[in-house]
Amino acid sequence: MRNFKLILQYEGTRYQGWQRQISTPNTIQGRLEALLTKMVNTKTEIHGSGRTDAGVHALGQCANFHAVTDMSCAEICAYMNRYLPEDIGVISVEEVPERFHSRLNAVGKTYQYRVLNTEIPHVFDRRYVYVFPAALDLEAMTEAAGYLVGTHDFRAFTSAKKGKKSTVRTIEDIHIARVNDEIRFTYSGDGFLFHMIRIVTGTLLEAGTGERKPADIETIMDRGVREDAGKLVPARGLTLMEVRYNDRSFYEKKGKWKR
Amino acid sequence: MRNFKLILQYEGTRYQGWQRQISTPNTIQGRLEALLTKMVNTKTEIHGSGRTDAGVHALGQCANFHAVTDMSCAEICAYMNRYLPEDIGVISVEEVPERFHSRLNAVGKTYQYRVLNTEIPHVFDRRYVYVFPAALDLEAMTEAAGYLVGTHDFRAFTSAKKGKKSTVRTIEDIHIARVNDEIRFTYSGDGFLFHMIRIVTGTLLEAGTGERKPADIETIMDRGVREDAGKLVPARGLTLMEVRYNDRSFYEKKGKWKR
Repeated sequence: MRNFKLILQYEGTRYQGWQRQISTPNTIQGRLEALLTKMVNTKTEIHGSGRTDAGVHALGQCANFHAVTDMSCAEICAYMNRYLPEDIGVISVEEVPERFHSRLNAVGKTYQYRVLNTEIPHVFDRRYVYVFPAALDLEAMTEAAGYLVGTHDFRAFTSAKKGKKSTVRTIEDIHIARVNDEIRFTYSGDGFLFHMIRIVTGTLLEAGTGERKPADIETIMDRGVREDAGKLVPARGLTLMEVRYNDRSFYEKKGKWKR
Repeated sequence: MRNFKLILQYEGTRYQGWQRQISTPNTIQGRLEALLTKMVNTKTEIHGSGRTDAGVHALGQCANFHAVTDMSCAEICAYMNRYLPEDIGVISVEEVPERFHSRLNAVGKTYQYRVLNTEIPHVFDRRYVYVFPAALDLEAMTEAAGYLVGTHDFRAFTSAKKGKKSTVRTIEDIHIARVNDEIRFTYSGDGFLFHMIRIVTGTLLEAGTGERKPADIETIMDRGVREDAGKLVPARGLTLMEVRYNDRSFYEKKGKWKR
């Protein structure tokens, strides 16, 4: 069995998210698995670095699949791009050690949330931004973001039902920048909870409008109640930019990862 | 009668171009006129700075319309953006002297043609680029472009049928730049013939692949035969970036343009 790592782009607009579902064939994973199964003539599963929700985009999603095939990486890439719909693209295909797993081995991810901060439409980016025309205080948002950076229990910032799984995550960095009429929120961390970035962004926007004080973030984290945090902002503004892995040598050197 | 100048953005993908047609309601002009007619409750015409072909986009198309209305420019802008489809946007509305005409008063235009010069897809820009993966010699294309800059008879570079109208135009500048995996051709001039930029770009690409020599451009212009020039490249890569006018004082000072 060979193991292939893919870097993927997709526009999430018309998909029910990444994860394969029995009820709808229109998921990114579902589309990819149907194509790979056809390509190698055997039922094939693909593992993403994580699920993206319905409507969320990816500029650098990472996924891997195992297959018995004589095709080269370039041939797989060309085959996939020939048959995939225009809103899913394969950027690269690379052969990796058999034990590499795109989700389990991921050590970091970067997401970007784009807010169009004007009433004037931007036709070309309309599917990738959330239109939010109110005046925003960048400094207040940056101050609020400062409280989120680090290792915290983010259970107030997720729509996931309370369960046994840990809601502790590490946000390495939040960068907020104005680019022309846009405010771009860039989040890097070791992983993010269900809806976490969209709720965090909604909360930061409320700090930006003055609806809440930056220091409120601390109280929200301490109390851990979803209702204390801000609104869930729309999926269309969110893009998975990058998934990071340790250097390849990391899992090649360890006995366990050796092929 | 008041006169309003609009700056417009549109994604041309699903439209039959700018110009109103009896056979299809799906033109940019048709959409705008239907909306304005409703807005002021009187049949209203809108004049564009020029027609864009089916599938061509605009980042800064300019148009004007006359109307009797009490609405402010901001109200007109908000009204239009509320009712226009998402792929047409009004960037600004400005009241101008009654004799201002967006086509007749235009003194210059800038178009950009985007070529995605790789086999690797770019999902997010797919509607705005022409995928052309062959190796391209930027220097040869720039040399070829040099022959086109200036005032010339461009009849070899148009799909328009031979008529009495002049095919002499002035290209002020052609800028060719590599931006990541893209080659961007930016054309500024006093006006362009039907299909001119797409045929010029097709010809420059052939200079880029080595299919023809840069100096061939001179011969093509001298002979003035369409078949000598290169292929018409697809509309999707082309965007009208900007329309330039003389300073407003120009038509206000001249007696003829005075209100």
